[in-house]
Amino acid sequence: MDFPQNEGAGSQPPAAFKQAHFLRDVIFHGKLQLLKSPEENTRCRRGLYFQDGMRRVDYILTYHIKKSSSSRQHTSLLRDNAFTRTLRRGRAQPAPAAREETKAGSPNLCMDHHDDDKCLWREEFESNLVEMGLELERDEETKTPGVGFVKIHAPWSVLCREAEFMKLKMPTKKVYEVKHSSGVMEKINVFISKLTDPLHPNLEENRTQKVKHLSYPFSREKQHLFDLSDKDSFFDSKTRSLLVFEVLKRTKCTKAKFSMGITSLLGSGVYLAAYPLHDGDVDGENAEPNDRKLLYEEWASYSVFYKYQPTGLIRKYFGEKIGLYFAWLGVYTQMLIPASLVGVIVFLYGCLTVDDDIPSVEICDQRQNISMCPLCDRVCSYWNLSTACGTARASHLFDNPATVFFSIFMSLWAAFFMEHWKRRQMCLNYEWDLTGFEDEEDHPRAEYEFRIMQKSLKKGHKSQKPEREKLTCRDRFPAYMMNLIMMLLMIGVTFAIVFGVILYRISTKAALAMSSNPMTRSSARLTVKTTAAIINLLVILILDEVYGAVARWLTLLEVPKTDKSFEERLIFKTFILKFVNAFTPIIYIAFFRGRLGGHPGSYLYVFESYRMEECAHGGCLMELCIQLSITMLGKQLIQNNLFEIGVPKLKKLIRFIKSQRGSFQEKEYEKKLQRYETDHFLEPFAGLTPEYMEMIIQFGFVTLFVASFPLAPLFALLNNIIEIRLDAKKFVAELRRPDAARGKDIGIWYNILRGVTKVAVIVNAFVISFTSDFVPRLVYQYMYSPDGSMHGFVNHTLSYFNVSHFQNGTAPLEPFHLGFHVDICRYKDYRDPPWSETPYEISKEFWAVLAARLAFVIVFQNVVMLMSDVVDWIIPDIPKDISLQIHKEKILMMDLFMKEEPGKTQLEETSPSPHRNY
Amino acid sequence: MDFPQNEGAGSQPPAAFKQAHFLRDVIFHGKLQLLKSPEENTRCRRGLYFQDGMRRVDYILTYHIKKSSSSRQHTSLLRDNAFTRTLRRGRAQPAPAAREETKAGSPNLCMDHHDDDKCLWREEFESNLVEMGLELERDEETKTPGVGFVKIHAPWSVLCREAEFMKLKMPTKKVYEVKHSSGVMEKINVFISKLTDPLHPNLEENRTQKVKHLSYPFSREKQHLFDLSDKDSFFDSKTRSLLVFEVLKRTKCTKAKFSMGITSLLGSGVYLAAYPLHDGDVDGENAEPNDRKLLYEEWASYSVFYKYQPTGLIRKYFGEKIGLYFAWLGVYTQMLIPASLVGVIVFLYGCLTVDDDIPSVEICDQRQNISMCPLCDRVCSYWNLSTACGTARASHLFDNPATVFFSIFMSLWAAFFMEHWKRRQMCLNYEWDLTGFEDEEDHPRAEYEFRIMQKSLKKGHKSQKPEREKLTCRDRFPAYMMNLIMMLLMIGVTFAIVFGVILYRISTKAALAMSSNPMTRSSARLTVKTTAAIINLLVILILDEVYGAVARWLTLLEVPKTDKSFEERLIFKTFILKFVNAFTPIIYIAFFRGRLGGHPGSYLYVFESYRMEECAHGGCLMELCIQLSITMLGKQLIQNNLFEIGVPKLKKLIRFIKSQRGSFQEKEYEKKLQRYETDHFLEPFAGLTPEYMEMIIQFGFVTLFVASFPLAPLFALLNNIIEIRLDAKKFVAELRRPDAARGKDIGIWYNILRGVTKVAVIVNAFVISFTSDFVPRLVYQYMYSPDGSMHGFVNHTLSYFNVSHFQNGTAPLEPFHLGFHVDICRYKDYRDPPWSETPYEISKEFWAVLAARLAFVIVFQNVVMLMSDVVDWIIPDIPKDISLQIHKEKILMMDLFMKEEPGKTQLEETSPSPHRNY
Repeated sequence: MDFPQNEGAGSQPPAAFKQAHFLRDVIFHGKLQLLKSPEENTRCRRGLYFQDGMRRVDYILTYHIKKSSSSRQHTSLLRDNAFTRTLRRGRAQPAPAAREETKAGSPNLCMDHHDDDKCLWREEFESNLVEMGLELERDEETKTPGVGFVKIHAPWSVLCREAEFMKLKMPTKKVYEVKHSSGVMEKINVFISKLTDPLHPNLEENRTQKVKHLSYPFSREKQHLFDLSDKDSFFDSKTRSLLVFEVLKRTKCTKAKFSMGITSLLGSGVYLAAYPLHDGDVDGENAEPNDRKLLYEEWASYSVFYKYQPTGLIRKYFGEKIGLYFAWLGVYTQMLIPASLVGVIVFLYGCLTVDDDIPSVEICDQRQNISMCPLCDRVCSYWNLSTACGTARASHLFDNPATVFFSIFMSLWAAFFMEHWKRRQMCLNYEWDLTGFEDEEDHPRAEYEFRIMQKSLKKGHKSQKPEREKLTCRDRFPAYMMNLIMMLLMIGVTFAIVFGVILYRISTKAALAMSSNPMTRSSARLTVKTTAAIINLLVILILDEVYGAVARWLTLLEVPKTDKSFEERLIFKTFILKFVNAFTPIIYIAFFRGRLGGHPGSYLYVFESYRMEECAHGGCLMELCIQLSITMLGKQLIQNNLFEIGVPKLKKLIRFIKSQRGSFQEKEYEKKLQRYETDHFLEPFAGLTPEYMEMIIQFGFVTLFVASFPLAPLFALLNNIIEIRLDAKKFVAELRRPDAARGKDIGIWYNILRGVTKVAVIVNAFVISFTSDFVPRLVYQYMYSPDGSMHGFVNHTLSYFNVSHFQNGTAPLEPFHLGFHVDICRYKDYRDPPWSETPYEISKEFWAVLAARLAFVIVFQNVVMLMSDVVDWIIPDIPKDISLQIHKEKILMMDLFMKEEPGKTQLEETSPSPHRNY
Repeated sequence: MDFPQNEGAGSQPPAAFKQAHFLRDVIFHGKLQLLKSPEENTRCRRGLYFQDGMRRVDYILTYHIKKSSSSRQHTSLLRDNAFTRTLRRGRAQPAPAAREETKAGSPNLCMDHHDDDKCLWREEFESNLVEMGLELERDEETKTPGVGFVKIHAPWSVLCREAEFMKLKMPTKKVYEVKHSSGVMEKINVFISKLTDPLHPNLEENRTQKVKHLSYPFSREKQHLFDLSDKDSFFDSKTRSLLVFEVLKRTKCTKAKFSMGITSLLGSGVYLAAYPLHDGDVDGENAEPNDRKLLYEEWASYSVFYKYQPTGLIRKYFGEKIGLYFAWLGVYTQMLIPASLVGVIVFLYGCLTVDDDIPSVEICDQRQNISMCPLCDRVCSYWNLSTACGTARASHLFDNPATVFFSIFMSLWAAFFMEHWKRRQMCLNYEWDLTGFEDEEDHPRAEYEFRIMQKSLKKGHKSQKPEREKLTCRDRFPAYMMNLIMMLLMIGVTFAIVFGVILYRISTKAALAMSSNPMTRSSARLTVKTTAAIINLLVILILDEVYGAVARWLTLLEVPKTDKSFEERLIFKTFILKFVNAFTPIIYIAFFRGRLGGHPGSYLYVFESYRMEECAHGGCLMELCIQLSITMLGKQLIQNNLFEIGVPKLKKLIRFIKSQRGSFQEKEYEKKLQRYETDHFLEPFAGLTPEYMEMIIQFGFVTLFVASFPLAPLFALLNNIIEIRLDAKKFVAELRRPDAARGKDIGIWYNILRGVTKVAVIVNAFVISFTSDFVPRLVYQYMYSPDGSMHGFVNHTLSYFNVSHFQNGTAPLEPFHLGFHVDICRYKDYRDPPWSETPYEISKEFWAVLAARLAFVIVFQNVVMLMSDVVDWIIPDIPKDISLQIHKEKILMMDLFMKEEPGKTQLEETSPSPHRNY
């Protein structure tokens, strides 16, 4: 293949050519492969460069080929200039040269294939790309049958143009010193940084943070500001692919009935995939040093788990959005360290004080000899309170005053975390030169455009309105209704399943209790609890996957306009469903279990035969804690290990096997693959949503019920240390390189975090006041206790029941179980005794305790919310030194410009301008 | 005075000169006044232009002159170029020409005066200004003795440069059509706009809103984008002054020991004032049409009170910040209309249902004959409940279920208002081309720089550190402590005064009750209430002023770095003090009054002699309502009319009288004044803080206790209709033109509003549940009422007291006042009767009602907060059509640039560039 009209066309040969200048004549006449030097051959073989070995591949489009014929034409080189211009004009009157080209180029290939339409679209799209200044190279004879590759290279002029349009901030030549603080603070900082030195990854960038390049939106008119000595590396590979992607998004293919952008083309299968290339191999003998390898070694490895993440490098390689995700994950994990420390201390406090806890001592005291009312009808008998000693003591571990402190602490911790993240984000914005960047609205999604087209086609029959259609509420109504119904249905399913598990528990317990085998009876409680918890966990895990799929399907039904809106709607739905799924059983245990049971003599029956379940004597907090830990641990272990590690590996294997069906030796084969082919076999990047979602649900576990489970932060911390490296491995080694997306913040996730934090305050207030015994104890101590101590509290919380008042057939069959006749049995509730004027009515104590509980909720909620707001308000959103730096940068920039002014004025004077007419 | 070296210097004569080109030789040689045409003379006389009648005065600096000698040199013209350059060099070796100039110019004047230092600083500052390209003209022989004026004109090149630096978005030539909606919506919109047509002010701008100029940050390199055919009006007067002010802020005077900007110069009295000029006169026979006059007629007039405000014109004349204030005030006032409508309906509902209210009917029922316990010790006797009939009926007006609905409504209203404002703000940002604008950090304040200088001078003796000093925590500590102490003291003063008023009420009532005159005794309650309320109001008004001054003084003590920080700190302090001041008496009445009194037999005594006051039988809601309306109305009427109208007029008069001491005939004199002199006599602009503060306090009245006073929105609405025009008059006619400040939002005020809204939810929850009888009624109806109706409620709320249990000497002196012997009297409380086991203990009902009250608070607070969040979340922050327009603008801009590209590429090719070396 030769290189036509190069001299003739003249405009903008690629910048990368200059070094290869002397080789040009050799290369462009004759077979490329044969004439190349060995070194160039390697470069090219690795597929990171065009066949000429000079022009970088910035982006890859892949498409499907039915038949891999035409081995002769294994590369078709599309270049700017005469060729494409004529290609355009070609439709009207094709110039001879163009026609020749057209024969030799892609159209020829099209005829070979079945799906002509797609091929034509591709052809037009690609010629439009060439018109935009990009350079393309086609490669159809790859080792991968059935897949064609279009390699895209952006020459310097295109990069400059796009960078200018995007107002990309680039570092200028001007360098200034970053001063963090002065005097004593500086010394402390130096000391701290020396101390944390081993925690930093082994990267160059960390060493040279003392100076920073002033950055300024790139503009061709201000080229002199920038250091353009090395044009090849001025834009790094991530930026190059970003700029190319920008062109791709803007380019439309108008040949089809409606104009299609790259998203539509991908959506309709004209192209299979579009991705930028990874920088190189992560391992292997011939891997040169590159960012990807560096990341693999210094970040995506369990051996560096204790180190900070190289956020700068992550951002440099993956772009801002992914950089922000990992930075956020890092901050979150870091913040979990103090939280889990305090959590462990609180737990230990509970362990240490268990012997000083008067109520549990009283319960365990055999001498008290309190006869409790039976726990079930007929088959159960009276029981001695001291048998509940174990549960009571265990309860104290999680139900002590330290827990109240801990949940206030965690609420403030959450507020502080949000604030800290805001500041960190601001720092990153500054470091990454994103100040002043505004999120742009996305291009419409393919599905949306398709719907629009359908609609306008329908309308087109009636009227020829030139106006662009849009989806009205009426068009969307069915989808919205469907959404609403499905969401309610799904939530209903969750509730139903929780209720089912409850029924399972009640009925199994009743069945086991009636068993004749004493062993079965004694182990009933344990058996039921364990199986129920496992069922719950399994249901949660399965529904999680189902709900993810349902949410995606529902969002597709809605046909949101832009990717951003799609993502937000998807996130919203997924979040609600997954949240409800994860927390419904827990909320049931915390607030409803044991409260609906009624009291002796008038129990509540489900299906008229099963009594509602009650908590063990220690209160429901213990059971809440067990449920929480099982759900959290199980979810994390299974979802992380099984789903996140196993499934992608499996998928990759399947895809690999499918695509080749054993035509080559595998090892050999893999080595021979070009870079873009290797990347083709990687899993495509599916967005950060699942990663964030997992973390938010975990954040929910850490904050929502922290009052009942102070070890949650510790579990979360352990999980996250693994999670970071796991995700890192996935991103570096197992996924195609994602399109670099710019972003200033973590978007909707921040709001969701705020929402969770707010809900957490209320939930914790209710858990402390209603699930734990904290408030009743306080009330007893200050209102009823004769000596101001907790002695007598247990007795105070137990009401009296006259066994003669049992309903027909509910009295125990073995009333002498305890060895003596029981007249009055006790049960846990605040009710008037049988001998009062209003027997079994709610007592004054009940109302007093209720008022205290409610007052506690109000005080707790408002005090904590106020404190969070104060934290929010006291800590400035922008760190002081960053705002100073930004200010300084502005002044420096101004100085730079003012220095230029005299020259400019002269220039202005020499050039004739209309307002200077005398 | 002549015009030296004009031809010689050559750089940038002012653009405005081109029309006067032919006049140049005539004007510049000889006396100006004599040669001018009559028309030009008028222009100049009005003082809007330099003496040449061509160059606009964009800014004025005034300074103090001790002696008005030198009538010969009544103008000294400073111009750029050779003169100033030599002036700089002059210090080293003055060029002959420069020396000549120096003699003729300002230094000459300096010698005449006493304060040489100031004069030298001025001189340097002004020469620096000239160096920056500004053109100055001095006018010392004005009609205003003792004041010198420096007129500043910015030539075209300076305006362009500054606009480019500030990235000022200016309209380009490209025009596009603004489409708001399509189809049915469009028709509705057209209909609505026709309907509201008479409500729009009579301005051109409102007619031509169909098209909008694409705007783009001004850049000299992209001049071709802009319509520069009329350079004089390309930048309007507000923008010109903004640009000049920018230069002023940047220019430093380094002659003094430390570098001083314009703020320091103003602060140290080197200049008296700095202000831009108004566009012209608002009235008078020779007033030509100008924006100011238009604003005066179409906005600052009570006759147009029903119309929308011309926000676009306000912004054009005063800048964005003031435009935003009035837009906000407009939105707030508009939103008050539905609120006051609903408020009135709720009030009317109360009026209409007063006869159906069973409790008040029962109270008024003479047959019930309930003997109540005496209201004071000894002198008071038992009284019949039916005498409280009036209060009970009046109470119902404000204490009915509709009130609950209304306070939920108002909370949602507040959320909706915030959301609506956010959207409106976004619209304005779009209309005013502020999208993408970022707030810049201010320059340091003069006081701050002064402190820094002092500090570095002190340190300078010890070490010669070149580093710039800053104020550390230790420097600020005394001020912070002072702040804390003073704030606590002030709040303490407020509390003390409220307590004092309470004491006044209690003691006066006791004294009057003991009076022998029956007339005095009967009118005691009314007398005491009225006088107490008036005292309260007066105290609030006086303390308001005091607190304003204290807050300013405290903030000055703190020496904040920037104006923004100064303002925020000042606002924070003022807000807290004024808020506490306005709401303490109200909070006392709502939540404490009548709750601390104890019960018969064990009253609480203040100073061991006065019983704490109780509310009238109808509950405290009535009294709360009275106090609220008096405070609100009194505050608004007096502060608005007296302070806002009266005081500025008085000030102006005083200044006027002071400055002339009767040397001219007043009328004649005023006519002869130049524009800048007239403006000099106007009140300087003191910031928007007081305006906002007043409105926020009002917003507090409207939202905080709205449950007790549904007419508050109506009062606020009436006040605001006047307030808008009052403020408008003040800004247009009575204040110097403020410096145009750019701003995207109302800043800290938005957060304060959010805060007030949040607090309002909680306060309303408490008012409804604790101050009103709403919850007890519900509890009675659903828990205790025998027939589910309200019959018997009054009896249920009254406890029994056995009169034999009165403490010694507190029993009434006239026990037979009611005509029969009273054994058992009743009092309003939930306590056990004397015959129960625990006489006079808090009863079970009390706890039940308390629990219900608290539960109501929790439910109300969380439901309303959730609903507000939902409102916040459902309504997008950016209106749909605006986001579409912004997107469209971006695409249009991109198209525009892409169209230019081919030309640019050619240009690039012709010019030799380093990367094109083959």
